[in-house]
Amino acid sequence: MEITLQSTVDFLKSRDRYSIFLHASPDGDTIGAGVALLRTLRKMGKRAYLACSDPIPARYNYLFEELPEPFGGFQPETIVAVDIADEKLLGDALECYESDIDLCIDHHASNTLYARRTYLDVKAAATCEIIGNLIKALGQEPDRHIADGIFTGLATDTGCFRYTNTTPAAHRMAADMIEAGADAGQINRLMFDTKSRLRIEIERAALQNIEFHFDNRCALICITKEMYELIGTDESELDGITSLPRQIEGVLVGVTIRQRGDKCKISIRTRVPYDASAMCRMLGGGGHVCAAGCELSGSLDEVKRQILAVVEEFLTHGNQEQPGEAAL
Amino acid sequence: MEITLQSTVDFLKSRDRYSIFLHASPDGDTIGAGVALLRTLRKMGKRAYLACSDPIPARYNYLFEELPEPFGGFQPETIVAVDIADEKLLGDALECYESDIDLCIDHHASNTLYARRTYLDVKAAATCEIIGNLIKALGQEPDRHIADGIFTGLATDTGCFRYTNTTPAAHRMAADMIEAGADAGQINRLMFDTKSRLRIEIERAALQNIEFHFDNRCALICITKEMYELIGTDESELDGITSLPRQIEGVLVGVTIRQRGDKCKISIRTRVPYDASAMCRMLGGGGHVCAAGCELSGSLDEVKRQILAVVEEFLTHGNQEQPGEAAL
Repeated sequence: MEITLQSTVDFLKSRDRYSIFLHASPDGDTIGAGVALLRTLRKMGKRAYLACSDPIPARYNYLFEELPEPFGGFQPETIVAVDIADEKLLGDALECYESDIDLCIDHHASNTLYARRTYLDVKAAATCEIIGNLIKALGQEPDRHIADGIFTGLATDTGCFRYTNTTPAAHRMAADMIEAGADAGQINRLMFDTKSRLRIEIERAALQNIEFHFDNRCALICITKEMYELIGTDESELDGITSLPRQIEGVLVGVTIRQRGDKCKISIRTRVPYDASAMCRMLGGGGHVCAAGCELSGSLDEVKRQILAVVEEFLTHGNQEQPGEAAL
Repeated sequence: MEITLQSTVDFLKSRDRYSIFLHASPDGDTIGAGVALLRTLRKMGKRAYLACSDPIPARYNYLFEELPEPFGGFQPETIVAVDIADEKLLGDALECYESDIDLCIDHHASNTLYARRTYLDVKAAATCEIIGNLIKALGQEPDRHIADGIFTGLATDTGCFRYTNTTPAAHRMAADMIEAGADAGQINRLMFDTKSRLRIEIERAALQNIEFHFDNRCALICITKEMYELIGTDESELDGITSLPRQIEGVLVGVTIRQRGDKCKISIRTRVPYDASAMCRMLGGGGHVCAAGCELSGSLDEVKRQILAVVEEFLTHGNQEQPGEAAL
């Protein structure tokens, strides 16, 4: 059941012994929202802990300063999920609570409404923006730690205020949080201005083998088996790498091939009007209009040949799908 | 003479036949501010043109849509300089007007007060933020073109709201401009998410020869003579390249060497507490605490040896300058 902001306020005031769930593979928005809500509930005299199926990446350590026992040890009375659009995102350790989520606070239009109550604001750029409004509605003032949490989610979910989801309200919430003491400069430096040496290596190798096709309208990079040997199992080093080929001036279709074992995972990123989703559907995958994916087997050369044939078709004839296929 | 916002308003209302000067090598802030002021003055029924010693880079073309004759052909009655901190930045074509600037609108603390009147707001993140406030004080409403101009300067001068100069007021002005119709998504894509093929080549080559020294606390890249042959005379392809080595996790001192002819131009970027300015002073240069430069002659190997000796000294013993030297 979807509820209003005021009902969410009344609910949070009426309960105690909170466990705040973050989604698996936690990102800045779920962590920032969880920490901000946790600190606010504790300021209100409530007991509250966080829970997450996966470890928190070390670069978010600053959000846990002066926060005693963030991860908790009691049987929760009230479970709140933040930024978790789908019960599948609870992850292994928390999936057993799938039917027990009392409240979900989220901004994803794709939310499956799995919780008993859901406060959904799809106009919000980040769940942290909703938490910021909620704190105000609870009659609380964000301290600098809470402000750091909310700023973190706003900044990470908007690509540092760069993506088209950056609304006037998101900018204004960022302004409020900086005034409340958020260390925006330091957070932005950590999130957007620091690359690991491994990441530098990966980008260098990817640029080394970049290919241009069809009058440079298509660029293709490949994360090869050899590069995966450097990377190991932590794919987070590859975050955002798929946007690299499309960044190049004049490129309308950017293709990233990740070669894992016998399979190749393909990501296609396009510029308007080219439809990445339609291209990937022709290769057995799917996705969004400008960002889609599929999986192909075979040698790297065969895989490239298949993808490039589809890309060429679209660059030559436009998005010529039958209307019926769009629903597939 | 420094004047107030209200005096600036009174002055602009009382005059006509404006020439708005942009600084040489124009950037997003001077262009955005100039275009926004030009359009506002014309809405007020005034005649106004722009002037700039250098051509406007093509990626700012969107600011000139539906703007008839931006560059003008009359003897100006009133000259307004926007974002020009120093008369030296007027450039070759405009330096003859050095003593004739009626009004300068700027946010640089280093402004030399060369104009007859200067409206300076050093707390503003960008000159465009000042122009936004000025338009309000003039009783005007920004249309979507004006909003595009102001948003452009705000975004470019703050590194898309990433740098520490991004104040709450800058975020709020961005929010107002998006509401007034600024196409923030498209502007951010053009400014921050598009790289030329040449730039990709340069980054690839720079990463190819990157060196790490002193337990990886120092990273050094080199733009060689060979790379300059690709680049030609347009150094704008190198914008921001000097921040590349310092972006790497753990790097405290990032060094960029640009090899031009017999000279090497050195840029040093540091993280707190290392003082780039002090390092560069030891090599005959200077600059800011975290961003400084110098010029050295000699072979690339000799130049590297000289720089690395200084960097090692600072990494080993800290910033040990005598207090007196700091003023040099």
